[in-house]
Amino acid sequence: MSSDADDRTGTQAAIMEATYRALCDHGYADLTIQAIADEFAKSKSLLYYHYDTKDEILVEFLSYMLDQFTVEDAIDTTDSPDDQLWSLIDNFLPASPDPEQHEFQVALLELRSQALSNEAYREQFTRADRLIKDTLADVLTAGIDDGTFRDVDVEPTVSLLASTIDGAMLRRATITGNSTAATREALAQFIEIQLLAEE
Amino acid sequence: MSSDADDRTGTQAAIMEATYRALCDHGYADLTIQAIADEFAKSKSLLYYHYDTKDEILVEFLSYMLDQFTVEDAIDTTDSPDDQLWSLIDNFLPASPDPEQHEFQVALLELRSQALSNEAYREQFTRADRLIKDTLADVLTAGIDDGTFRDVDVEPTVSLLASTIDGAMLRRATITGNSTAATREALAQFIEIQLLAEE
Repeated sequence: MSSDADDRTGTQAAIMEATYRALCDHGYADLTIQAIADEFAKSKSLLYYHYDTKDEILVEFLSYMLDQFTVEDAIDTTDSPDDQLWSLIDNFLPASPDPEQHEFQVALLELRSQALSNEAYREQFTRADRLIKDTLADVLTAGIDDGTFRDVDVEPTVSLLASTIDGAMLRRATITGNSTAATREALAQFIEIQLLAEE
Repeated sequence: MSSDADDRTGTQAAIMEATYRALCDHGYADLTIQAIADEFAKSKSLLYYHYDTKDEILVEFLSYMLDQFTVEDAIDTTDSPDDQLWSLIDNFLPASPDPEQHEFQVALLELRSQALSNEAYREQFTRADRLIKDTLADVLTAGIDDGTFRDVDVEPTVSLLASTIDGAMLRRATITGNSTAATREALAQFIEIQLLAEE
């Protein structure tokens, strides 16, 4: 990679990092390009030169996060398939998110609500859903192949898991007094009864 | 009820009906009090007199809908508990919503995203979640009592059903090409394997 490209990559990473911090601090509604620029140490003019609206930056932020995602970061592929499945559930639906995780999940849901009417956001969340479903499907298929899981239908099982995780996140963020404990308990029963092969 | 109270009730119902139509037509972001007034046949001054912001009307709209909800409208309590459970799933997560149902579900999700940061919306969605969970719990409990369902833990089962329904709705509305067919198929398997008692 040329040093020009290195600079570009370094600058983009720094902008995306600033976007993450600004989003956690302000949420979607109160976010401005200025708030992102305030978090960005170098060349603010670069930021204003490249982006006209906060939505442009945020859509690129979603795309950048998806580009960075690797299965190897999300799960330890030397673990057993049922441990890998729980790693994914813990990752997407933590039992007790720390304050930063919580702020970020709320911000992501605010961005997701833009996908209700904005095609550029919708594209990124469609890509995210595909990535999550593919990862879950890989873990399930590996578990079926090595005898950890029963020979279940992968597509509906993955859809149930993805819907349950998304819904539990939405409920925790929009409903007072709601935790994900009961949903996680029901997921544990589902895995025990419907997924895990008999000993 | 006095005829004054009748008038008030009639006017409120007419305002709420106008709000429903304006919300389906414009969605949350583009909704204005004027758009609601345009759908409201009588006394527009009354509308402007009572409400300062669209959020005031919309929070009252959610509250009004919840006041109108009766279990008897949602399910036929003479049906068997498993038919009642499917009536609820069909109601909240229709396989193929008609265009008006779809517009309204998208609008409801837009209102729900306001609950991420607005306490008045959050109160109404907390009430809605409690109502849905209580209704599901009543159906499950009746089914356990009459032997239709196994003696499952009601609270986690209800949380799984509510999360799955909410997540499938969110995914259908924010992800291109997503239907609820696979999630509904997995719910059918869940009910068959984990809920229904052995013959």
